[in-house]
Amino acid sequence: MAETKNIKTLAQKAQKASRQLALLTTAQKNSALKKMAAALRKSKGYLVEENRKDLKAGKAAGLSSALMDRLLLNDKRIKGMIDCLLDTAKLKDPCGEILETFKRPNGLVIKKVRTPIGVVGIIYESRPNVTSDCIGLCLKSGNSVILKGGKEAFYSNRAIYKVLKETLKDASVPTEAIQLIPSTDRKAVTELLKLDEYVDLIVPRGGEGLIRFVAENSRIPVVKHYKGVCHTYVDKDADLKMACTVCVNAKTQRPGVCNAMETMLVHKDVAKAFLPDVIADLRDRGVEVRGCSKTRQIVKGLKAATEKDWSEEYLDLILSVKVVDSLEEAADHINTYGSRHSDAIVTKNKSVAQKFLDSVDAACLYVNASTRFTDGYEFGFGAEVGVSTDKIHVRGPMGLEGLTTYKYAVHGTGQIK
Amino acid sequence: MAETKNIKTLAQKAQKASRQLALLTTAQKNSALKKMAAALRKSKGYLVEENRKDLKAGKAAGLSSALMDRLLLNDKRIKGMIDCLLDTAKLKDPCGEILETFKRPNGLVIKKVRTPIGVVGIIYESRPNVTSDCIGLCLKSGNSVILKGGKEAFYSNRAIYKVLKETLKDASVPTEAIQLIPSTDRKAVTELLKLDEYVDLIVPRGGEGLIRFVAENSRIPVVKHYKGVCHTYVDKDADLKMACTVCVNAKTQRPGVCNAMETMLVHKDVAKAFLPDVIADLRDRGVEVRGCSKTRQIVKGLKAATEKDWSEEYLDLILSVKVVDSLEEAADHINTYGSRHSDAIVTKNKSVAQKFLDSVDAACLYVNASTRFTDGYEFGFGAEVGVSTDKIHVRGPMGLEGLTTYKYAVHGTGQIK
Repeated sequence: MAETKNIKTLAQKAQKASRQLALLTTAQKNSALKKMAAALRKSKGYLVEENRKDLKAGKAAGLSSALMDRLLLNDKRIKGMIDCLLDTAKLKDPCGEILETFKRPNGLVIKKVRTPIGVVGIIYESRPNVTSDCIGLCLKSGNSVILKGGKEAFYSNRAIYKVLKETLKDASVPTEAIQLIPSTDRKAVTELLKLDEYVDLIVPRGGEGLIRFVAENSRIPVVKHYKGVCHTYVDKDADLKMACTVCVNAKTQRPGVCNAMETMLVHKDVAKAFLPDVIADLRDRGVEVRGCSKTRQIVKGLKAATEKDWSEEYLDLILSVKVVDSLEEAADHINTYGSRHSDAIVTKNKSVAQKFLDSVDAACLYVNASTRFTDGYEFGFGAEVGVSTDKIHVRGPMGLEGLTTYKYAVHGTGQIK
Repeated sequence: MAETKNIKTLAQKAQKASRQLALLTTAQKNSALKKMAAALRKSKGYLVEENRKDLKAGKAAGLSSALMDRLLLNDKRIKGMIDCLLDTAKLKDPCGEILETFKRPNGLVIKKVRTPIGVVGIIYESRPNVTSDCIGLCLKSGNSVILKGGKEAFYSNRAIYKVLKETLKDASVPTEAIQLIPSTDRKAVTELLKLDEYVDLIVPRGGEGLIRFVAENSRIPVVKHYKGVCHTYVDKDADLKMACTVCVNAKTQRPGVCNAMETMLVHKDVAKAFLPDVIADLRDRGVEVRGCSKTRQIVKGLKAATEKDWSEEYLDLILSVKVVDSLEEAADHINTYGSRHSDAIVTKNKSVAQKFLDSVDAACLYVNASTRFTDGYEFGFGAEVGVSTDKIHVRGPMGLEGLTTYKYAVHGTGQIK
């Protein structure tokens, strides 16, 4: 009960601060970001010390080595956090941009102006750098931020937050604009997700379990992606050498990320010419290939792909392969089993490429390129808050603009209706 | 249980049809809209007959005369529905528009392309014209639509739906693209709101009770507005004659709508010069004025405004009036009690106007004009799906573009990461 009230109070403070944030100049925001970067640099010793408490608890709790690695703060990672704040200071301020201007017959001039959203809640798991990255991105876009990190990183997150919040006292930014929910309890998340009167957007970052929990319990709009089941369709008019390079890259360059390819679809007319070489190449790189029956007729010794494979996000050196009769079948397959994240076609035929772009329902569609480019940095956004597979508000890589909305400013000379 | 399954099946069909809709040309969509208009014209007799069943049931149930009036279908109203379909055919097709193009250093050309959202659910109350208006707007924007009307208009909605769906058989539009939930039960709404796998957006249209029910129970993003508590702030640098005209218009031109003014804020330096005249004018037009203590010192005989008045949406000839010390106090009052819908300032001072635009958190902010212009038609959108006081996806009047999203089409020449 006390906790519930605390979280509400904290959200109210964040909302109040957001009104002041909206009035800051770009120079004031950038100056605060640079001060924050300097403060992190000065506090390295303290951050590493607090991080050690998390590492110790993590070891005692038997966290996997992958999780322990994510948790670790060292000189290099603190430098990464500092660089992110400095890079954010260099980004164009999205707020105040005039998106459209239209004059009405009655003389009213209507301007659609980009503005901060207000209060953004970030719910995340182990990596402590998310704390400072998101504080920086929200500040630059003029939003108050409420952070709720995972319990494994409790001490690290709190230390980063304390250092950055302390810095705001000497800046023109209201200190209440950044808030950290100190609880390690998921109940605190449930409470936060009810506060639609004070919080305008929730961005969950973490595993599918966390994201589903947030999506199912939130009254506040959520921008999210559950997973990335990405496809590459090799058309009958593909440059097969290019197709091989693109597919091998999409699968193997970094298999553990959401924009890596999980299923390869191949047109039946080129299956015999294409599959033996590409599968040999993939196997050389340690990929386990699981094929449909037609694939397995062409390349012997493959494991069979089951129905379950088509919707699996392996995040590993595993690939399912299916031979399809047509572009339509490929698009149907992707629309049925895909995750609306990133899908590619390799073809020299422009009208086939266009049909693919129109038929497949996904955030990012590639013609003759690897799906691995779905990323805020690769898109030139200079930052990435996350990737959205939703269709509302923001789709695909979410940069600073994803943390903004707009308002209409209507200028008149006494018009009445 | 059977119902649950039926609603899911219907949503799946709508999603499947949405893939075909996305491939239609503008000409195909416009042709279907014109056929629909012609079909309504031919079916007037049938529509009026079915509407009579609703009117009879409504009378028996003791519906208010306002509700009975909303329910009524007559020649004029059917003509209104026909005109809306024909107007929609004339609107620019929003889909396919290239919103941005950027070339990356590696040669990738990234196009941000406007696309349909997919499947839109409309949950609405009594007015039967919403059925055909929304079918038309969703079709033009390339979306499948699932309609759930109120039980009072059951026969009318079903009749309109049947006539329009029948028409699709002769058009190139898949008939499954329009769906009506035949149930009169709110449980059906609850079921629909869980289907986030198939439905992409929910637009509730009706009273605050319906909208709150939808917002609190939906896993699908909702675009909504609860109410309109709109303000006009008369600054100390206002042209007081203009201020009087603007305020009287905003309150009295049509008091029962969401963009009408409910509270007038007046700077203390002009309160004595301004209040007596404007209040006399308002009272002449039958407005009941409720004032703060300062207002009541200046104009005698007014009812006192209580704390409750500041957040009240009267939708009637009632106005609350408050004298404020500064722009800051006005902005604070609006941010505290307002509904983020439409608020105005009257001032000749440009920097004060800009401060107002930056400080007040609302969809539409007016400088020297009546709040009554917040409306898709007045904004030049040619149509209005509703008005959003949310900040996510769409804010303010929601035209056809509000029924679209975007995807990234990335064109490469074999790029890998």
